[in-house]
Amino acid sequence: MELNLPESPTRSIRCIVKLGGAAITRKNELEEIHDENLEAVACQLRQAMMEEGSAPSKVIGMDWSKRPGSSEIACDVDDLGDEEDSSSEFSKFVVVHGAGSFGHFQASRSGVHKGGLEKPIVKAGFVATRISVTNLNLEIVRALAREGIPTIGMSPFSCGWTTSKRDVASADLSTVAKTIDSGFVPVLHGDAVLDNILGCTILSGDVIIRHLAHHLKPEYVVFLTDVYGVYDRPPSENDAVLLKEIAVGEDGSWKVVNPALDLTNKNVQTSVAAHDTTGGMETKISEAAMIAKHGIDVYIVKAATTHSQRALNGELRESVPEDWFGTIIRFSK
Amino acid sequence: MELNLPESPTRSIRCIVKLGGAAITRKNELEEIHDENLEAVACQLRQAMMEEGSAPSKVIGMDWSKRPGSSEIACDVDDLGDEEDSSSEFSKFVVVHGAGSFGHFQASRSGVHKGGLEKPIVKAGFVATRISVTNLNLEIVRALAREGIPTIGMSPFSCGWTTSKRDVASADLSTVAKTIDSGFVPVLHGDAVLDNILGCTILSGDVIIRHLAHHLKPEYVVFLTDVYGVYDRPPSENDAVLLKEIAVGEDGSWKVVNPALDLTNKNVQTSVAAHDTTGGMETKISEAAMIAKHGIDVYIVKAATTHSQRALNGELRESVPEDWFGTIIRFSK
Repeated sequence: MELNLPESPTRSIRCIVKLGGAAITRKNELEEIHDENLEAVACQLRQAMMEEGSAPSKVIGMDWSKRPGSSEIACDVDDLGDEEDSSSEFSKFVVVHGAGSFGHFQASRSGVHKGGLEKPIVKAGFVATRISVTNLNLEIVRALAREGIPTIGMSPFSCGWTTSKRDVASADLSTVAKTIDSGFVPVLHGDAVLDNILGCTILSGDVIIRHLAHHLKPEYVVFLTDVYGVYDRPPSENDAVLLKEIAVGEDGSWKVVNPALDLTNKNVQTSVAAHDTTGGMETKISEAAMIAKHGIDVYIVKAATTHSQRALNGELRESVPEDWFGTIIRFSK
Repeated sequence: MELNLPESPTRSIRCIVKLGGAAITRKNELEEIHDENLEAVACQLRQAMMEEGSAPSKVIGMDWSKRPGSSEIACDVDDLGDEEDSSSEFSKFVVVHGAGSFGHFQASRSGVHKGGLEKPIVKAGFVATRISVTNLNLEIVRALAREGIPTIGMSPFSCGWTTSKRDVASADLSTVAKTIDSGFVPVLHGDAVLDNILGCTILSGDVIIRHLAHHLKPEYVVFLTDVYGVYDRPPSENDAVLLKEIAVGEDGSWKVVNPALDLTNKNVQTSVAAHDTTGGMETKISEAAMIAKHGIDVYIVKAATTHSQRALNGELRESVPEDWFGTIIRFSK
């Protein structure tokens, strides 16, 4: 696999954050952003990025676009002089978001994930999917920039990400690394990409996260979602139990250690796999386990809550408070 | 310079088109698209891309985004079956657009072109500029997609374009090439990029075109603008003369051959350079001459006119009709 990553990275990435599509878009309304959640997520991200002990500085809004109905550009930098940057106080984050109610219709209507670019409907769907997800990416970049986070939208397609039967075949991580080293926060997203076997497919945000985590080696990874974490069955069921801590072995095998259930990747099939046909609990844990087995903590937590703020801040690395709600997936010898 | 272009390209690019910012945005209105012009340009592009002799097929709209005020997605592909692609009828084009009234305010307000990312205002301006130009890129991709052109937005920043004192230092042309080979039309744009001397700068659409033309070797290049071509003085002046044909030598020197003026790059300084302080006539011709000296015809023509359609069609390669208005810059031994 072509990696294209500089040999001696100077960076030390603190955190890769996944903004789950379900958390930042309105699931049942086509191409609608969940504005309140997105605003809260942006605010929490900024808080988390401030190095411990640094005084909160004035927020410099970085989206100077014209607002709807206005003919003027909003730009509140008149009092910014030529002084040096204060953003060395920011630690290094990477953001990846899912598609939620963007892109999904276009991709499933045309079957982009199955490939076959020679068919007019797949080719049209590929273009339509990319339009929808890059539109969402722009809105997320704008929301984070308004909060003073120096965000740079980067589409995996443009960054040279390609797949081979849906596995990452190439990815220009050097541009991502250079962007981080220059003090920016790259914002990547699930995207339609070229696949050298299928012609094309969908590269999911989760696969991007796994690839980035493996190569950039962040201190921890946070998945922001619309439920409190991973449950032993669909969280809508009355007796669903939140899995608070899952231990992962060197081979990627896992075991729920809190609460004390007899739930491991070996017996999950018979116990809970019935509802897990479309990438449910088991898939989520397995994906996270692939990251955790390298010694990187993974937190799955509900977006825009005090729990997500604590996870983003990295407060859970030493010990997990009893009143924290979420799922921790971590390496255990 | 790092090129990263596959050694044996299978592609044969017909045309690189520059959509001038002045032609597709409203110059005096911040962040306003010139919708009528953009629609006409998209229509002419589609016409031009159809191979000679191929029957005009049904337009398959490829922007399936939700329209404002609607909760439904517009997708007119219900009658598309599983048949093979008919778009082999399309010849290979690349589109690059300028910024016009997008990005300009943000870049000039913050001085992004001068570099200095350590200053908060430059860093904020860099983010704000990219938001504005990627917003324009998305709108142009959507307009071309609505016309059935399989467009893929590609930001130079994300494609790994960097500069060294404003000259291109690196560019991942392999992703551009792969995109073309897969039957898509890449749409690049003037962008804020990292510069390894200045920290950051603005990479203009014209520099991108020159770089792409040099490496992709298209048959011809068309600059769509808001005037009829290049004049010997500002076109607003009464006695301005349209320069119809300019001959370029192997060394990049040039001479106006039609009309028969005594105007060459050697005496331009004393004759017309007075108004040429901000990249006017001489700069335009010099840029075009850098392309033409490789044997690639350059046409500078007013967008959304019969003249632009003929230029895009490639009708001028053999002989130039008397009633064609525009400027041709071509190699002459």
